[in-house]
Amino acid sequence: MRISVPEQMWIETFADLDAEIVVWDGSTPQPDGHLDLVLWPYTLRPEAMRRVDPSRIGLIQGQSLGYDGIADLLPSGATYANAVGVHEAATAELAVALLLAATRRLDEFRDAQRDHVWEKRWSRGVIDRRVLLVGVGGIGGEVLARLDGFGADVVRVGSTARADDRGQVYGTDELSDLLPTADAVVLAVPLTESTTGLVDADFLARLPDESVVVNVSRGKVVVTDAVVAEGGRIGFASDVFDPEPLPADHPLWTMPHTIITPHVGGMSSSMRTRVEALVRRQVARLAAGEEPDHIVVA
Amino acid sequence: MRISVPEQMWIETFADLDAEIVVWDGSTPQPDGHLDLVLWPYTLRPEAMRRVDPSRIGLIQGQSLGYDGIADLLPSGATYANAVGVHEAATAELAVALLLAATRRLDEFRDAQRDHVWEKRWSRGVIDRRVLLVGVGGIGGEVLARLDGFGADVVRVGSTARADDRGQVYGTDELSDLLPTADAVVLAVPLTESTTGLVDADFLARLPDESVVVNVSRGKVVVTDAVVAEGGRIGFASDVFDPEPLPADHPLWTMPHTIITPHVGGMSSSMRTRVEALVRRQVARLAAGEEPDHIVVA
Repeated sequence: MRISVPEQMWIETFADLDAEIVVWDGSTPQPDGHLDLVLWPYTLRPEAMRRVDPSRIGLIQGQSLGYDGIADLLPSGATYANAVGVHEAATAELAVALLLAATRRLDEFRDAQRDHVWEKRWSRGVIDRRVLLVGVGGIGGEVLARLDGFGADVVRVGSTARADDRGQVYGTDELSDLLPTADAVVLAVPLTESTTGLVDADFLARLPDESVVVNVSRGKVVVTDAVVAEGGRIGFASDVFDPEPLPADHPLWTMPHTIITPHVGGMSSSMRTRVEALVRRQVARLAAGEEPDHIVVA
Repeated sequence: MRISVPEQMWIETFADLDAEIVVWDGSTPQPDGHLDLVLWPYTLRPEAMRRVDPSRIGLIQGQSLGYDGIADLLPSGATYANAVGVHEAATAELAVALLLAATRRLDEFRDAQRDHVWEKRWSRGVIDRRVLLVGVGGIGGEVLARLDGFGADVVRVGSTARADDRGQVYGTDELSDLLPTADAVVLAVPLTESTTGLVDADFLARLPDESVVVNVSRGKVVVTDAVVAEGGRIGFASDVFDPEPLPADHPLWTMPHTIITPHVGGMSSSMRTRVEALVRRQVARLAAGEEPDHIVVA
């Protein structure tokens, strides 16, 4: 077994594995010889994947959950697994942090703090409020678990209507009826053909004044220009954007009721132990001659 | 039955009650005649209580949970009930909002937003982190319920060690051993003789670098100068201060890793329905000749 890791720190982490471990961060030429598993770096732009020689790699293990576009980048014959179980909890944590910050006006209080101004303001919060949670996958489930104790009426929306052990899931075709009843919408969907541009001018027009949209999924789920056109009528607290990074002259930076974080949903200290556990599971599967988990490109 | 309410809006709310309702906000002379219940205003400084004539009031119903100092202000013979059940959830909501904001660096991202700067940073969050929850009363219980789904190791600390249906409660005498293990401390205690100055230089010195103290209880639970002396080594996210309001030239405003909200824990839109429900319960008790609930000064 021979694996590559993107940073020196991982060598020690995996010292106990029955494997030769080399450091390769994807930005330099691929090491000679065969690699059974390549742990792809978290922050390198995926464009570097164009240069890999898949004939000498068993599995490329990504550290991201989203994999939109990766099938187009990877040379034919490459096998890529996404990082299921690594980022869902941390991303959901940020989603709830953004939801609470927006509904309790922490952005306005921070601005007041910078001006040394003590000025009380009423806020809405989520107690007794209706939160539409759009997305019932890994991140959606973690958001749901976190919102449980907050006294909100959480309404789940999935691609199609159904019931599961947590109750009713509405379909996206029911969104137009649900949106006027919502105080907040949390977007936790993967980027697919049907979720691209889901939050457009029509979607936003149906939301009541002072409601809040939280996006921790992918930037292209929201039509940015439509948010800008609302001019702050609706709050927008987002970790992901289209375009990304958000250019310095973009109108969103200064729009009222807008909170911007720079795509850091997964960048929590909880990530490392989860990547380690994932790599260990994949190495064990490879060693046993089993198919790796979470293959999304093959 | 005759009751007074501090704002006109309450007249309509209580129109169905079998009672004469007058508007009195405490800042003007007390209305002639007897009042069975006075709903005291939420925002008026309690000093105005010195002027009430208790011989013509059955019950003063406050809208705050804390009642430190009120026994000294009220003329002898007055009966005062605090607002149990009104603010606990909203205050706990703000506590978790502050905890997440501090541990996911929302303050720094807000500052970057004002400068139109897209700069990713790692943060800690609360996943797999130890949170000491000091206070197991109404607010503490609501904080506990909200933290349930966040994957944190929540350790509860009460005045004395005991076990309850939620598990182990440590005593404040065990704090010195617990503090070095904490990533965050959430303060949700009433202000009493034993909690005044609880968070002093010794307390803070035992906390690890980059840990966070969240205070939604009372300002005097924390020795402000001791927090300032730490200079940002420990994060401080607080809704209450000593002194309060925080003067414009106070060093806390600009201290690193410090998040300031202006005592707005209870100022959520969830408050009004809860005050209404409380008044209705008290009126029903008075009408039935029963003792009102939550009397804390008599």
